Amino acid sequence: MSGPITLPTLRMMLDYVDTPVLVKLKSGLRIKGVLKTYDQHLNIILGDAEEIGETSIRRLGLTLVRGDSVVVITPAA
Amino acid sequence: MSGPITLPTLRMMLDYVDTPVLVKLKSGLRIKGVLKTYDQHLNIILGDAEEIGETSIRRLGLTLVRGDSVVVITPAA
Amino acid sequence: MSGPITLPTLRMMLDYVDTPVLVKLKSGLRIKGVLKTYDQHLNIILGDAEEIGETSIRRLGLTLVRGDSVVVITPAA
Amino acid sequence: MSGPITLPTLRMMLDYVDTPVLVKLKSGLRIKGVLKTYDQHLNIILGDAEEIGETSIRRLGLTLVRGDSVVVITPAA
Amino acid sequence: MSGPITLPTLRMMLDYVDTPVLVKLKSGLRIKGVLKTYDQHLNIILGDAEEIGETSIRRLGLTLVRGDSVVVITPAA
Amino acid sequence: MSGPITLPTLRMMLDYVDTPVLVKLKSGLRIKGVLKTYDQHLNIILGDAEEIGETSIRRLGLTLVRGDSVVVITPAA
Amino acid sequence: MSGPITLPTLRMMLDYVDTPVLVKLKSGLRIKGVLKTYDQHLNIILGDAEEIGETSIRRLGLTLVRGDSVVVITPAA
Repeated sequence: MSGPITLPTLRMMLDYVDTPVLVKLKSGLRIKGVLKTYDQHLNIILGDAEEIGETSIRRLGLTLVRGDSVVVITPAA
Repeated sequence: MSGPITLPTLRMMLDYVDTPVLVKLKSGLRIKGVLKTYDQHLNIILGDAEEIGETSIRRLGLTLVRGDSVVVITPAA
Repeated sequence: MSGPITLPTLRMMLDYVDTPVLVKLKSGLRIKGVLKTYDQHLNIILGDAEEIGETSIRRLGLTLVRGDSVVVITPAA
Repeated sequence: MSGPITLPTLRMMLDYVDTPVLVKLKSGLRIKGVLKTYDQHLNIILGDAEEIGETSIRRLGLTLVRGDSVVVITPAA
Repeated sequence: MSGPITLPTLRMMLDYVDTPVLVKLKSGLRIKGVLKTYDQHLNIILGDAEEIGETSIRRLGLTLVRGDSVVVITPAA
Repeated sequence: MSGPITLPTLRMMLDYVDTPVLVKLKSGLRIKGVLKTYDQHLNIILGDAEEIGETSIRRLGLTLVRGDSVVVITPAA
Repeated sequence: MSGPITLPTLRMMLDYVDTPVLVKLKSGLRIKGVLKTYDQHLNIILGDAEEIGETSIRRLGLTLVRGDSVVVITPAA
């Protein structure tokens, strides 16, 4: 289990708001979308989200991602 | 473990109430249903729920989904 | 980890008491039985429970299911 | 993670004390034994315990089972 | 997650101190050794410990086993 | 679940700031980058991060790694 | 999840400081190094650490191992 993210990490997330990010989940699933909002447990809401598969992309729309599954967040090219 | 979802995320969930959503679980299971109610741990109650398999759909009816297993929630087309 | 289920979810569980339910566990195991009692961590007691396998059914009797393993609860036809 | 079992569930466990029970663990392991004692986290002590394999039974004797691994407890025929 | 073991379970562990025990871990690993000390989270210290493989035994010496991985503790013949 | 890292460990992390580190995750994923900041739950921000695969390297840029997934942190050659 | 290690276990770890230890992780990974420091959540710092594979050894240097992944700690021959 991870504790809540604290100030330095939160500040970085602030820079990501309204920009496209790529979220990698514990299951290996990758979801790309515009970061709308997040909370200190890294529960995330992505706009115009897409599930990025090995060979396909699945449109998801406004998506809630539960923080417990998040492994890595990076800016999406 | 994830902490409780907080205000911004809760507000988004409010928009989903009484609309069809697709819930993806840690096991890969996908359940579609009308979002009846939820709590801050993302324990969810879906009406007229269906288990969406690769090639089949299984009717579940009024279904409780435990928040601990929830990974992603999106609007269901 | 999931937090305790709260009021709306508890109220729904109340409707299930003394009715047959189907409980799906993290391991994929499915157990059917009459919901006798439950608590806020979804520790559940089922009467006349049966373990529903792909091709077989195994009689379990009065069964305690630990909430930590519960993924989905639905009414059993 | 599961919270501690509460009154209704504890009361049922009381009925099991000094009777043979079958405990199914997250790993799929099944252990049969006489329920000696338990606590609210379902840490369990079984007397004359046996590990029930697909084709073999392994004598364990007085055994402590950690609650974190417990999935299902049923009366053992 | 498991809560701390409480009185009845602790008392049983007391009987095991300075006797050989067999500890089975979540990974399936089995470790045999003399129980030196333990705490309420079942963090355990074993003396002259050995890792019991299917076909081999590996000498470990004075070994600390983290409670989080412990599934079953039994007396070692 | 791991508790927050405490003083001695935090002090060591301080030495790593602004130096290249290699982070190994529970999934086996390895990410290399310059340690920008971290918190007591080992939520980490890496600059110019790269995902180090068996045969390929994937540029990630400014990357947030959730502490819950971190297993090992070492200086990157 | 494991609670913090308490006095008896901490005292044993004290004996290990500045001596070579072998740490086995949940993933099966084995890391050998000189125990520099540790905290009550078994977050560990090893000096001159090496990753011990089945057929190869990989030099890691000063390494932080997150307690959540630790299963067994033994003195390294």
